[in-house]
Amino acid sequence: MSKDLDGLRDQVRAFARARDWEQFHSPKNLAMALSAESGELLEVFQWLTEAESRALTPQARNAAAEEIADVLIYLVRIADQLGIDPIAAAREKMVLNEKKYPADKARGTNKKYTEL
Amino acid sequence: MSKDLDGLRDQVRAFARARDWEQFHSPKNLAMALSAESGELLEVFQWLTEAESRALTPQARNAAAEEIADVLIYLVRIADQLGIDPIAAAREKMVLNEKKYPADKARGTNKKYTEL
Amino acid sequence: MSKDLDGLRDQVRAFARARDWEQFHSPKNLAMALSAESGELLEVFQWLTEAESRALTPQARNAAAEEIADVLIYLVRIADQLGIDPIAAAREKMVLNEKKYPADKARGTNKKYTEL
Amino acid sequence: MSKDLDGLRDQVRAFARARDWEQFHSPKNLAMALSAESGELLEVFQWLTEAESRALTPQARNAAAEEIADVLIYLVRIADQLGIDPIAAAREKMVLNEKKYPADKARGTNKKYTEL
Repeated sequence: MSKDLDGLRDQVRAFARARDWEQFHSPKNLAMALSAESGELLEVFQWLTEAESRALTPQARNAAAEEIADVLIYLVRIADQLGIDPIAAAREKMVLNEKKYPADKARGTNKKYTEL
Repeated sequence: MSKDLDGLRDQVRAFARARDWEQFHSPKNLAMALSAESGELLEVFQWLTEAESRALTPQARNAAAEEIADVLIYLVRIADQLGIDPIAAAREKMVLNEKKYPADKARGTNKKYTEL
Repeated sequence: MSKDLDGLRDQVRAFARARDWEQFHSPKNLAMALSAESGELLEVFQWLTEAESRALTPQARNAAAEEIADVLIYLVRIADQLGIDPIAAAREKMVLNEKKYPADKARGTNKKYTEL
Repeated sequence: MSKDLDGLRDQVRAFARARDWEQFHSPKNLAMALSAESGELLEVFQWLTEAESRALTPQARNAAAEEIADVLIYLVRIADQLGIDPIAAAREKMVLNEKKYPADKARGTNKKYTEL
């Protein structure tokens, strides 16, 4: 079993094809599913303090892992449908982030880059 | 430059450390940031038809790629903070999905597994 | 029973006070809860076509009504905690929207105001 | 100018009609727009502590007010398209919440009703 994102993409692709779900997997619908799953991830943390979120109970950690899995599955799927390489896109975005948030200006502050 | 998720995780980790942002990167806050970015991904598609979402303009496709990148960056980061391997979690979830949605019952339907 | 938003606000306020939940109802946490509920609303629609979403089954319509209720409850609550009148804020925003989207320029197009 | 939700609903309805936007305002699309706006509300709070979120700067409070306004506008609009009275739905949900979270059991705890 491949451990990289391409392997996961292929598995999700085969899963959808075996169920004839291509018809439902428009990028629009997949963006909704991804966002709904990210909402379930929020739910794990919404009443916890930040400190509690850094030291989850085993049950909460399992719940978080399952929602992270769901988000990643839909992320890989929407990227596949759009012909986007998500890791390459993230790498490019990190280059941009380095410019938007120079370490010396951004250190220790939670300000947005437009306010630095 | 490594092309896998571990490489991205290391880059995001170094980026945060160089800015002394560990203090802001609680799992709670990262879940919020991930969800906010998934909302920006929604925004790309909200007024498009499904057909239009399958044939994006170059500008819309670039916008989608950037939001997918942002979601992936925060996903990798929250998983790192929680000690979760996101690909392994997704692989486990796919095993569960195979059971929840048997191909013969789920074929061609958009029903939830509880209604199959 | 009052039918306006002030009545709902008072009811939610009393509900939280009776449970000693003020401690959990920081605006940060309430924004998370509101967003998680909006994700549940997405889930009702994610695999439906737009046409299907305009002609919901009774079950789906009930599900949508419950999620709309949840969003409104948290919206009223976060506005209360921040001392914001949500209807007045929406009225002010509509004035802004009238300027951002002049009817003659925005007619029949789904473009963002920055592209009109 | 009416100050209740019906007045806001009528204003949003007229706004959409004057722009021939009925075609874009399917419940599916409006759920996406509502969720995208709730993501912008998250963004206001994502790097703040809970204590900071209870004592916003004037700029952050204005930003929160604008996002609350946007969420309410889309909430009123989707409810209108579905023929749902949002305040009545919220009132019904509060009755349900009273049963799910009896004050004596739920006092001072952030546990979900399934764990009480």
